[in-house]
Amino acid sequence: MNISILGSGVVGRTISTKMTAIGHNVFLASRDIQETKSREKFAEWFANNNAVQLLEYKDIPADTDIFINCTQGEGSVAALQAIGKDKLENKIILDIANPLDFSKGMPPSLFISNTDSLGEQIQREFSKSKVVKGLNTMNCHIMMNPSIVPGDHNIFLSADDSKAKREVTALLVSVGWKETNIIDLGDISTARGTEMILPIWLRLWGALGTADFNFHIAKK
Amino acid sequence: MNISILGSGVVGRTISTKMTAIGHNVFLASRDIQETKSREKFAEWFANNNAVQLLEYKDIPADTDIFINCTQGEGSVAALQAIGKDKLENKIILDIANPLDFSKGMPPSLFISNTDSLGEQIQREFSKSKVVKGLNTMNCHIMMNPSIVPGDHNIFLSADDSKAKREVTALLVSVGWKETNIIDLGDISTARGTEMILPIWLRLWGALGTADFNFHIAKK
Repeated sequence: MNISILGSGVVGRTISTKMTAIGHNVFLASRDIQETKSREKFAEWFANNNAVQLLEYKDIPADTDIFINCTQGEGSVAALQAIGKDKLENKIILDIANPLDFSKGMPPSLFISNTDSLGEQIQREFSKSKVVKGLNTMNCHIMMNPSIVPGDHNIFLSADDSKAKREVTALLVSVGWKETNIIDLGDISTARGTEMILPIWLRLWGALGTADFNFHIAKK
Repeated sequence: MNISILGSGVVGRTISTKMTAIGHNVFLASRDIQETKSREKFAEWFANNNAVQLLEYKDIPADTDIFINCTQGEGSVAALQAIGKDKLENKIILDIANPLDFSKGMPPSLFISNTDSLGEQIQREFSKSKVVKGLNTMNCHIMMNPSIVPGDHNIFLSADDSKAKREVTALLVSVGWKETNIIDLGDISTARGTEMILPIWLRLWGALGTADFNFHIAKK
């Protein structure tokens, strides 16, 4: 598949590495290629990941099969707009971003929550795309390598389009997720629930002293 | 111990039954005893739980060792005020309530969240009491009988007072919780995290078709 990844931070890089490793063509999109290349961490990673094609948002090819939004939440809509609504039409946008607001100090609060979510905001703005919210409840290393955390633990998916959820599920199974550990929460409004899990995730990170954990729904 | 339980709904009743079964003196507080007794479900339960003493909020004894807030979130502060600040001074208030707002339709949203929480609101209002937020992330049957859900799963505690958290932990261990499954999240502001988990809890209830589940933090 042709996979276009928005955001050149650690989430975008980690997913790009895995997607090329399992045989996909990866386009990594940033706002300004030269600025991105000048960042030390990025340059070091890029030297070892030369199968990845770095492009500016506007140059992302139209024949992308799936878009993965790994930008910071506050820049997500603008990044998708920079790609262009026409290219996103009928395509899956896997939205991994969280609406974290760092402007009021640490730990961050959410700039949208409770009666709305970033996932819904993106679905409204790109109404002809198929937004699937998911993977946003764990660190990016676990997203792409669930065996970091032993035993069963879960990914939650929210989307209006059932076929899009099935396609994302297949992609997740291909990176090592057990299908039975992928929970379909329902329509895109259920993204409120997964985005609102971030505050306890951040506090657990502090309490446990590690980010290598994930939510597991234990049931009868 | 003398345990005073606020709220005669299913949460208050389930906890009252367990606390009397393990030898505590239980005072169950409601706003209007006659009205409470007239409710069919309550009357049926009360007939089988005659060790529980039903009292109005104002009549709750001052020598209570621990208060457990099982009221609906929107009525929690008023219920505690009806008991009286003096009786609550230096006492533990185990706050199980969630700030659910049913006024905007189903599923409920939260009437306080993100930059504040019900737990913090109660701690501010009763500043000489020791508020411990906990148990609010699962159904009340699991609270009092964790073995309903097999394997490890967690309770999260939030409180400014460490000794109060240790006392609540001891009470939870006495009803069957493994101490290693009780996670100290930090101060009372971490209650934002556990209260904000409710939206995904409600959606999981729908997606799984059962309320007999709980969050387990799987870690490396």
